[in-house]
Amino acid sequence: MRKIALRIEYDGTAYSGWQRQENALAVQEVVERAVARLTGETAGLTGASRTDAGVHALGQVAAFDTGSRIPAEKFAFALNTKLPPDIRVSASWEAAADFHPRFMARGKIYRYRMYDGPHAMALYTNRAAHSIYPLDEAAMARCLDACVGEHDFAPFAASGSVVKDTVRTLYRCELRRTGRFVDLFVYGSGFLYNMVRILAGTLMDVGGGKQDENCIRRALETRSRLDLGVTAPACGLTLMRVLYDEDTDRAGELFDLCLTGVIA
Amino acid sequence: MRKIALRIEYDGTAYSGWQRQENALAVQEVVERAVARLTGETAGLTGASRTDAGVHALGQVAAFDTGSRIPAEKFAFALNTKLPPDIRVSASWEAAADFHPRFMARGKIYRYRMYDGPHAMALYTNRAAHSIYPLDEAAMARCLDACVGEHDFAPFAASGSVVKDTVRTLYRCELRRTGRFVDLFVYGSGFLYNMVRILAGTLMDVGGGKQDENCIRRALETRSRLDLGVTAPACGLTLMRVLYDEDTDRAGELFDLCLTGVIA
Repeated sequence: MRKIALRIEYDGTAYSGWQRQENALAVQEVVERAVARLTGETAGLTGASRTDAGVHALGQVAAFDTGSRIPAEKFAFALNTKLPPDIRVSASWEAAADFHPRFMARGKIYRYRMYDGPHAMALYTNRAAHSIYPLDEAAMARCLDACVGEHDFAPFAASGSVVKDTVRTLYRCELRRTGRFVDLFVYGSGFLYNMVRILAGTLMDVGGGKQDENCIRRALETRSRLDLGVTAPACGLTLMRVLYDEDTDRAGELFDLCLTGVIA
Repeated sequence: MRKIALRIEYDGTAYSGWQRQENALAVQEVVERAVARLTGETAGLTGASRTDAGVHALGQVAAFDTGSRIPAEKFAFALNTKLPPDIRVSASWEAAADFHPRFMARGKIYRYRMYDGPHAMALYTNRAAHSIYPLDEAAMARCLDACVGEHDFAPFAASGSVVKDTVRTLYRCELRRTGRFVDLFVYGSGFLYNMVRILAGTLMDVGGGKQDENCIRRALETRSRLDLGVTAPACGLTLMRVLYDEDTDRAGELFDLCLTGVIA
């Protein structure tokens, strides 16, 4: 048996998220079916991140065991012939037998895309969150600064979350405006459920003048979810990269490639 | 009666193009229905450009006559409540009674988006054309240079086209690479049917090493369609702006805003 790892892109619009579930079609299930059709084996696929319904990915990582003799790097090509166009395997490689995409992840880079203006944009339905209030990205950036570093992000946890350890480290957080678009990029050791969407929703409130720019700093002290904004829509979020031990040296470079739209 | 002009964005994926037709849903028809629901009048909508099925628009312009007393600039907001999310009116204003979006157009800016790499991209299905051959954008740019200026673009006309005057002027033609993406921007006095898609298909052939970079120069001399490449897919094309007399002074500025992604 070999362990095959996949880097997967998807447009999350049509799916109930990454994780397989009853009564709704998940990305995991679609990829598992493609693997089964290719190898004739029923392989469970382990993913790095349980992205929500409507969330997109450019760099989800998943792995499965196989007895197939298909060369590791050919799996991407072969699986793409069996996948719908809104799911693509962008790379495949042989991983160590004990590779676990989630437990071995050392960090993740996410992008949250928002835009402002009086009207929604036809070409960004399901791709970005719309603010009818002009977004003051300088105020948003000042607010965001409080997130960088190691913090107890408990106020950023979705209500009902049962995670015990809510301490995470955000290595880099940056905003980039291009025309009407304001893209938030975050690179962290890990993220609580809905953390990036709560961060984005809070920044949209701050940028739109509905929240003061100290709210994140305050929330990290009070530990109160109420000091933060609403959870921003899933469609604005894209999982850009999952980083492992061998990637951490070039994490800054990967982050910059996301920032400049080279990874997009 | 007043003449109301609209600037319209659409994701062309679900539509048979701009122009109303039997047995298929066109963008024009959807907007006309929205106008009728709003004003109670049956108004014919005249558009600036008959975009094909699958072609997108950020700056289509259309106009209609109305006896409605709704303030001109409010039509955008009111129509958006009656349109599907993949069609948005981004601006509305009162135009001169004799305004004709097509006949009075002085120029148009189009973007054609392509990308290279071994695999298609899940998030750009219906949004960009994929080349499995690496695109040499420097060779493409040299090839493209032959287009700038006034030329008889007859070889760029779709076969079966019956237009008599095939002379057009391209004021600016530029390519911009960002990561895997190569965006072609063209600003011209007017375009023959399929002209931008034939130009893009030819450049993709040149960029992929399947055509020599003098092919456009040669085609403009031989006037032969056979010296050019295939018509690139509709999904890569976006009508960015239609320019009228009052816009020509800032045409360069508008073109630069497209190039830098501010209009996107």
